[in-house]
Amino acid sequence: MEHSGEGYDGSVPPRRGCGPLIAPLSEASRPLRQQIFERVRAGGLMPRVQVAKELGVSPASVTTLTSELIEAGYLEEVAGQREAGDGGRGRPPVALGVRPGAHFVAGMKLSDSFHTAVIVDFAGNVVASEAVQVPPGNHLPETLIGACDTLLADVTAKAGLARRDLSAVGIGVPGFVDSAAGEILWSPILRERHYPLAAVVAERTGLPVLIDNDANLVALAELWYGVGRETADFAVVTIEHGVGMGVVINHRLYRGARGLGMELGHTKVQLDGALCRCGQRGCLEAYVADYALAREATTALNLMHKPGQPMHVLIESLYDHAKAGNAAARSIFRRAGRYLAVGLANLVNTFDPAVIILSGERMRYDFLYAADTLAEMDKLVLNTGRPGPPIEVHAWGDLLWAHGAAALALSWLTEGLFSPPREMAAQ
Amino acid sequence: MEHSGEGYDGSVPPRRGCGPLIAPLSEASRPLRQQIFERVRAGGLMPRVQVAKELGVSPASVTTLTSELIEAGYLEEVAGQREAGDGGRGRPPVALGVRPGAHFVAGMKLSDSFHTAVIVDFAGNVVASEAVQVPPGNHLPETLIGACDTLLADVTAKAGLARRDLSAVGIGVPGFVDSAAGEILWSPILRERHYPLAAVVAERTGLPVLIDNDANLVALAELWYGVGRETADFAVVTIEHGVGMGVVINHRLYRGARGLGMELGHTKVQLDGALCRCGQRGCLEAYVADYALAREATTALNLMHKPGQPMHVLIESLYDHAKAGNAAARSIFRRAGRYLAVGLANLVNTFDPAVIILSGERMRYDFLYAADTLAEMDKLVLNTGRPGPPIEVHAWGDLLWAHGAAALALSWLTEGLFSPPREMAAQ
Repeated sequence: MEHSGEGYDGSVPPRRGCGPLIAPLSEASRPLRQQIFERVRAGGLMPRVQVAKELGVSPASVTTLTSELIEAGYLEEVAGQREAGDGGRGRPPVALGVRPGAHFVAGMKLSDSFHTAVIVDFAGNVVASEAVQVPPGNHLPETLIGACDTLLADVTAKAGLARRDLSAVGIGVPGFVDSAAGEILWSPILRERHYPLAAVVAERTGLPVLIDNDANLVALAELWYGVGRETADFAVVTIEHGVGMGVVINHRLYRGARGLGMELGHTKVQLDGALCRCGQRGCLEAYVADYALAREATTALNLMHKPGQPMHVLIESLYDHAKAGNAAARSIFRRAGRYLAVGLANLVNTFDPAVIILSGERMRYDFLYAADTLAEMDKLVLNTGRPGPPIEVHAWGDLLWAHGAAALALSWLTEGLFSPPREMAAQ
Repeated sequence: MEHSGEGYDGSVPPRRGCGPLIAPLSEASRPLRQQIFERVRAGGLMPRVQVAKELGVSPASVTTLTSELIEAGYLEEVAGQREAGDGGRGRPPVALGVRPGAHFVAGMKLSDSFHTAVIVDFAGNVVASEAVQVPPGNHLPETLIGACDTLLADVTAKAGLARRDLSAVGIGVPGFVDSAAGEILWSPILRERHYPLAAVVAERTGLPVLIDNDANLVALAELWYGVGRETADFAVVTIEHGVGMGVVINHRLYRGARGLGMELGHTKVQLDGALCRCGQRGCLEAYVADYALAREATTALNLMHKPGQPMHVLIESLYDHAKAGNAAARSIFRRAGRYLAVGLANLVNTFDPAVIILSGERMRYDFLYAADTLAEMDKLVLNTGRPGPPIEVHAWGDLLWAHGAAALALSWLTEGLFSPPREMAAQ
């Protein structure tokens, strides 16, 4: 996990909230100790014997290392459930769990209609959430920063915490984000390019701040709390105001050589095709995203997008027309679905994920992932004689995106807590 | 590295050639020992102090472990070059190298015009090579196996070795190959689908046999002997009779969820587009590969592909027409170049490799990677304000492909030599 937040030296700030001070752990067995911690966090509550089995190590090692982790305040023992049929004899089994109160972080998703925020404990549980409506379009940096600051204050208060109780803040924004540098290269919600959002928010809030592309954070949320618990390689495709993608390879978010993550929405599905808001032609997004549908609705159905009106009102109206049998409305969705099929099939041919998850608000409508679209995709995927990856639809709302942003903050926090001095890392 | 070769239990056969018997190594420090071996093999000759520095471990550890590796017959000491200006004082420096004679493997590339084979020593040096012309089109399995067997005998004899001196055979074929299962799902050179090539050749030759998609093996050759020495993530795109791709992520060949590797040539660049030999429409290959150019040449220039004539004769003629200013010929190459630009741009947007290598025989011609095509690609790649990945052209011949097949055999061999019993692996 890359670090961010200029103005910070990369170290995790000392814990200032309630609970025992987190002692630094000895370095002797770093990787396995971190593995144990992460396995327990991923699994929720887990008996030691199961941890040992899943990691393929001796129960004795697990016992030693979990003692250290409990001592340090990262894990705790929780009375487990008695299994049915054991007759109630003996001690109740004891499971390990992450100690929720050890740290708290905030996660925020900024978008062009709602900003959403959550407070998450060290175990990954959402403690409080908050959302605020914002006017569409792009904004001056000061406007965006101010909104962040207010939202953070509100959600922190809602959780019954003070800002100094937070260990880090994760923020997801649409567009091209250099997570390692904490910089937004371009975002549809921001009027400036190459803007150092992480450093600016860090200075304003006095907290370490991590930022990333929003679709990457949905993938991170899936990695931590969803499909990633069973699957090492998967892709999340988000269809909302734009089309985003996050890719997980071998249990890690894959960011590519320039650290920006993947942009399925700007793959070309048509040479010299429809104009995209990125300025290029033929992007998948220019056929599938909200604004693409709205553009066609304006042309053929005389549906107008009123200034200031949320985009989904228009899309909902277009959807109603299609359901009522309007040929033009149906043709708009049909074309969007076919190009989506091209984009997904190309994803399968160049990445072959074990699962593809379609995520985002728009998944409430069924026009994009209708049987027609999936059948079209099957026809476009390589014919190897084996079935392609399953497509799952997760119609979760913005809370998931904010939860992913919190996972980014927790990842950074965890790496900092467990990372050894540089010269030890090579072993 | 997956293992293959049904009929084998996965263990490396005992060394039967010249040189000391390879003793199994103790298990105490497996990962670092293997890392040292692989670093030395990648680097050619390397002083101990450089190995220690590159792996970030103590020189004492490297000294201990290299003694074991020398004892086991895998590494040897080689007198290094005196550095200029040291005045010739003291002992000449000593470098470590892989002991070439410890093992020999064969690598073969099967195609629809030439089969190529090499014998490679344990250090990765080509000891002998051989090629044989074959009639185009697909073949019965017996024909292919027979050709493999004869070619293997010829190249082994040329190296002054007997078949029993070989430790493994790697084979690359075009098409969809399940490397782990040793099975060809579909290949344009084979008349049967779902054919267990590895097991059949293993039975015929009495040797462990690994197979893979040919483009994957070009990527493996680059990983071992080329760009992979400096770069962790890259893609190799091969343009020959078809369009292939091999992807390396974090120094490993990436094969995707179904183990088949990536198929850029069958990504769709045009909905309902040109017919591909895979039976689908709009594949990149259907615009860029030999047969696509030949199809258009037949239509517009009345150039005919005579049965039995190698395809490159027709392409060469088409190329001559284009150079002489023929508008139709130029238009054929122009369109192929534009669609190639779409395919490469989509690759950048969904994988963002550090480098893209264009490889294959056809790279001798400049029509596909001309300035026009690269400029077009730049226009189609995400505009992040940062330059896209560099495109390198490696116009190596079939020998590289066979060398990659040998690297597949060496990878398998190395994994077998260093892999500990299952229960040790978890640490």
